[in-house]
Amino acid sequence: MPKKIVIIGAHAAGCDATSAARLTDKNAEITMLTNEKHVGYSRCGLPFVLGGHIKSFADLIVFPQSYFRMMKIDLKIETNVTNIDVKAKTVEFQYRDGRMETLQYDSLIIAAGARSVIPPIKGREKRGVFTLRTIEDCERIEQAMKEAKSAVVIGAGLIGLETGVAFVERGLKTTVVELLPQVLPAMLDKDVADAVQKELEGKGLKIITGRSVDEILGNEKVSGISVGGEQVPADIVVVATGVRGNTELAQKAGIELGETRLIKVNMRMETNVKDVYACGDCVETINLITKRPTVCQLGTTAVRQAKVAGTNAAGGYAIFPGVLGASVTKLFDIEVGAVGLGEASAQRAGIETVSASFTGKTKAQYYPGALPIKVKIIAEKETEKIIGGQMIGGEGVAQRVNALSFAILKEMTVKELAKAETCYAPPLAETWDPITLTAQMLLRKLK
Amino acid sequence: MPKKIVIIGAHAAGCDATSAARLTDKNAEITMLTNEKHVGYSRCGLPFVLGGHIKSFADLIVFPQSYFRMMKIDLKIETNVTNIDVKAKTVEFQYRDGRMETLQYDSLIIAAGARSVIPPIKGREKRGVFTLRTIEDCERIEQAMKEAKSAVVIGAGLIGLETGVAFVERGLKTTVVELLPQVLPAMLDKDVADAVQKELEGKGLKIITGRSVDEILGNEKVSGISVGGEQVPADIVVVATGVRGNTELAQKAGIELGETRLIKVNMRMETNVKDVYACGDCVETINLITKRPTVCQLGTTAVRQAKVAGTNAAGGYAIFPGVLGASVTKLFDIEVGAVGLGEASAQRAGIETVSASFTGKTKAQYYPGALPIKVKIIAEKETEKIIGGQMIGGEGVAQRVNALSFAILKEMTVKELAKAETCYAPPLAETWDPITLTAQMLLRKLK
Repeated sequence: MPKKIVIIGAHAAGCDATSAARLTDKNAEITMLTNEKHVGYSRCGLPFVLGGHIKSFADLIVFPQSYFRMMKIDLKIETNVTNIDVKAKTVEFQYRDGRMETLQYDSLIIAAGARSVIPPIKGREKRGVFTLRTIEDCERIEQAMKEAKSAVVIGAGLIGLETGVAFVERGLKTTVVELLPQVLPAMLDKDVADAVQKELEGKGLKIITGRSVDEILGNEKVSGISVGGEQVPADIVVVATGVRGNTELAQKAGIELGETRLIKVNMRMETNVKDVYACGDCVETINLITKRPTVCQLGTTAVRQAKVAGTNAAGGYAIFPGVLGASVTKLFDIEVGAVGLGEASAQRAGIETVSASFTGKTKAQYYPGALPIKVKIIAEKETEKIIGGQMIGGEGVAQRVNALSFAILKEMTVKELAKAETCYAPPLAETWDPITLTAQMLLRKLK
Repeated sequence: MPKKIVIIGAHAAGCDATSAARLTDKNAEITMLTNEKHVGYSRCGLPFVLGGHIKSFADLIVFPQSYFRMMKIDLKIETNVTNIDVKAKTVEFQYRDGRMETLQYDSLIIAAGARSVIPPIKGREKRGVFTLRTIEDCERIEQAMKEAKSAVVIGAGLIGLETGVAFVERGLKTTVVELLPQVLPAMLDKDVADAVQKELEGKGLKIITGRSVDEILGNEKVSGISVGGEQVPADIVVVATGVRGNTELAQKAGIELGETRLIKVNMRMETNVKDVYACGDCVETINLITKRPTVCQLGTTAVRQAKVAGTNAAGGYAIFPGVLGASVTKLFDIEVGAVGLGEASAQRAGIETVSASFTGKTKAQYYPGALPIKVKIIAEKETEKIIGGQMIGGEGVAQRVNALSFAILKEMTVKELAKAETCYAPPLAETWDPITLTAQMLLRKLK
C-alpha cells in the first residue's frame, strides 16, 4: 500500500515539503489542499511587482501546474479544510461548490501559513485600505494605484518598507507610519535602523516613527490618516503591521501551540501528535543563539523546515535545528541585511553584548563606484563569540550576511573574525573587508 | 632608549608592518628602506588603470607621503640595501648618489617583495617586451599602447588575464598564451578554468593554452610571437609568467629559506634569526588545509602577515597561522574567485576529495538581471569537511568566497553547509543560495 501524505498549504512551505516527500518516497499518494486559487508563487516578490521591477504577477510562479503533474501530486485548489481528526487520521475539507470530502492520511503536514491582520484602527473598513499578502491583494492595490496620487503604509517592517518604496518608485507621494520608535524593529538595532531611515528619506519616502495611527480618514473611500494629530492625505492605505499564523485548525485538532502561540514542533518538524508535521509561517522555531522558541516567518526558514518536514513525513530522517534569522532586502538601491541577534534582541534574551560599528567601502578605496557599507557586529561578552551582524550599504550585503551566518553557526569568535581571510581585488573588495575591520574594532573593545 | 626598527620594503607588506609597529610602540625609531621611487601604492590596481577603469596611477597610492610623516616614519626611498649583518644587527644601504650608510636595528622586518621574471624565451630583449609589476612598468606599457594595435600576454595567471582584458578594453587585438593546459592554473581546476576561458573568448580575448612561446619575433622592436609554429602579430608583448621572491639579501645574511625557496618564518613571522622578521611576497606560508609550506603571494596575505610581523617586531604578540588562499578577480564583467584547495591541488597534497558543481542564479530566478553563477565545492572524503570552493559568475563572487573561507576556517562539513542558513530577497539572493545547493549536490555524492 502506498503511503498517504496530505499537505495543507501550497506556498513556499507546502510546495517544498511536497517536493521533499516525493523525493523521499516515489510511490506515496500525495495530496495538497489549499484554499487559494494561485499556488506556488513567491510572496516575497509581490512588492517588487508593485514597484515595476518584475513585469507581472505570473512571473512569480515558482511551482507551475506542470510541476505538480510531473511530481504526481493531487493538488486541490480552492478547498477549505474544515477539520483534522488526529485519532482517525483524516482531514475533512470542502470544495468551492460546497461538496465535502474526507481524506485518510498516514502523514499530515500542516503548512497553513499566516494571514495579514489589521489592528482595530478606526476606519479600517473603508475602501482603499489594503493588506499585502496574496496576488489578489496586489491586484487590488495595482487597480487602486491607477487613480492614486498618494499612499500611506502602516508598519515599517520589511513588507511595509518594500511597499512604501514601491509606491515612491511608481510616483506616489508616500508616508510610512510606524508605532515603534524605529524602522525594521524586528530586524535592526535603532542605530542601524536610523541610518536606513535617513537613506530612505533622502530618496523621497516620508517616514513617521514612534506614532500610532489615530484614524483612517475619509467617507466611504479612504482620504488619508490622522497620526499624532497630524493629517496625512492618502488615496491608498496599506496595513503592513504583521501577520498571524494560521493555527486554528491545528489547535482545534488538539495539536499543541508553543509559548509564541504558533504550532510547537520538534527538530523533525513533528507536532506533539504522531505523524502530524508542521512547517512555515504557522510554526515556531528555535533561535540557535538563545535556544528559545522564536517567531521567524521568513521564506528561507519555511523552505528549510519544509524540506525536513517532507522528508520525515515520507519516512526519511532529517532534522531542522533552528534559525539565526538571516534576512535581507533592497530598498531603492540600498541593501539592508541582518543575521543573529541585535543588541536589543540580545538584551531581551538576557545576553550581555559588546558591539562595534564601522563604515567601509565595497571596493578598493580608489576604485570608481566603491560604495559605503556600514557594518555592525554584536558579540556575546563572556565567550567573545559573534552572535549578530547588521549591515546597510550599496552592494554585497546579502553575501556578507551569509558569511556572518556561517561564522555564527560555527561559533566564530571576534578574534577569529578579525583575522579571517577574505579575498581581494580592487573592483570587488578591499584587502581587509569591512566585516573584518569591524571585528578588529570590536576586538579592541573587548580588551 | 627607543627601540630601533628597520623595515626593508615599502609596499603592502612594508607599509602595513610599519603601521602595526607604530601602533604597538609609539616611541620606536622606525626607518623604511626601499629601492623604489613610488611607495605604498596598490600593485593590484595596475591592470585596472591600464584598462581605463581607474584614471591615473596616482590614484593607486594608499599610503601618501603625509602618512609617513604623520606616523613619524623615516622613509628613505631609492635606497639599495647591500648587506644585512645579523650578528652586528645592522643594515647597510646605498643612496642613489652612491653614498653608503649603516643602520643599527633592534628589530628588522624584511618585506622585500618579489620581482617579475622573464623566462629565457628567444627575443625577450626586444623593444616592446614588458613585465607588469610597478608603476614604471605600466607607464612604459601605456606609452607603447599609444601606437599599438595588437598585444600578446604570455601567462594566463591573474595578472596575465587582467592585463589581457585591459588591452581588449582599450581596443587592442589581444592573445594570451599559457604553457599549461588551462587558464588560472594556480587558482582553478580545469573544469572551472575552461568555463572562464570560454567566457573570456566570448568577449574577444583570444586564448591559447597548452603551448609554449617558441620565440618573440621582430627586429629591434617586437612584431609578434611564434607559438607552436603559429605566428601571432603583436606590437606589445607582456610577460606575466610569474614572480620570484626577493630572498637574496636574506640568504646572504644566513637567514634560512624553506622548501619553496622563499624565506621561512614561524607563526610570529620571525625568521630563524632572532629579531629578524619577514612578510609578504618574499616569505613562504603554511597552507591551513595541507599544513605544509606554500607560496601565496597575494595582497591579502601580505597585509595580514605584515600586521603580525610589525606587532611582534615592536614588542607585541601576534600570530599568523597560515592561509587558505582566498582570491578573486573581475575580468570584463565576469567575477572569478577561489578559496582553499581545488581537486588538482588537493591531489598533489595527497588528499582524496569529492566535489560537485552547480550553476544557479544570483537573484530570484524571476527577477530581471539575475545572473548565472557556477559554483564548485571540494570536500575531503573522510571527514566530509569543505576544503575548497571555486566560482565564476556575474556578481557576489567575492563575498561568497569569503563565506566559504569562513566555512573552511571553522571546519564546516558538507552536511552543515547544505543546510546552513542564508538570507533571501528576490532582488539579491535565492532562498537556497547556489553555494548551499552545490553542497546539497555534494552531499548526495558522499552518501
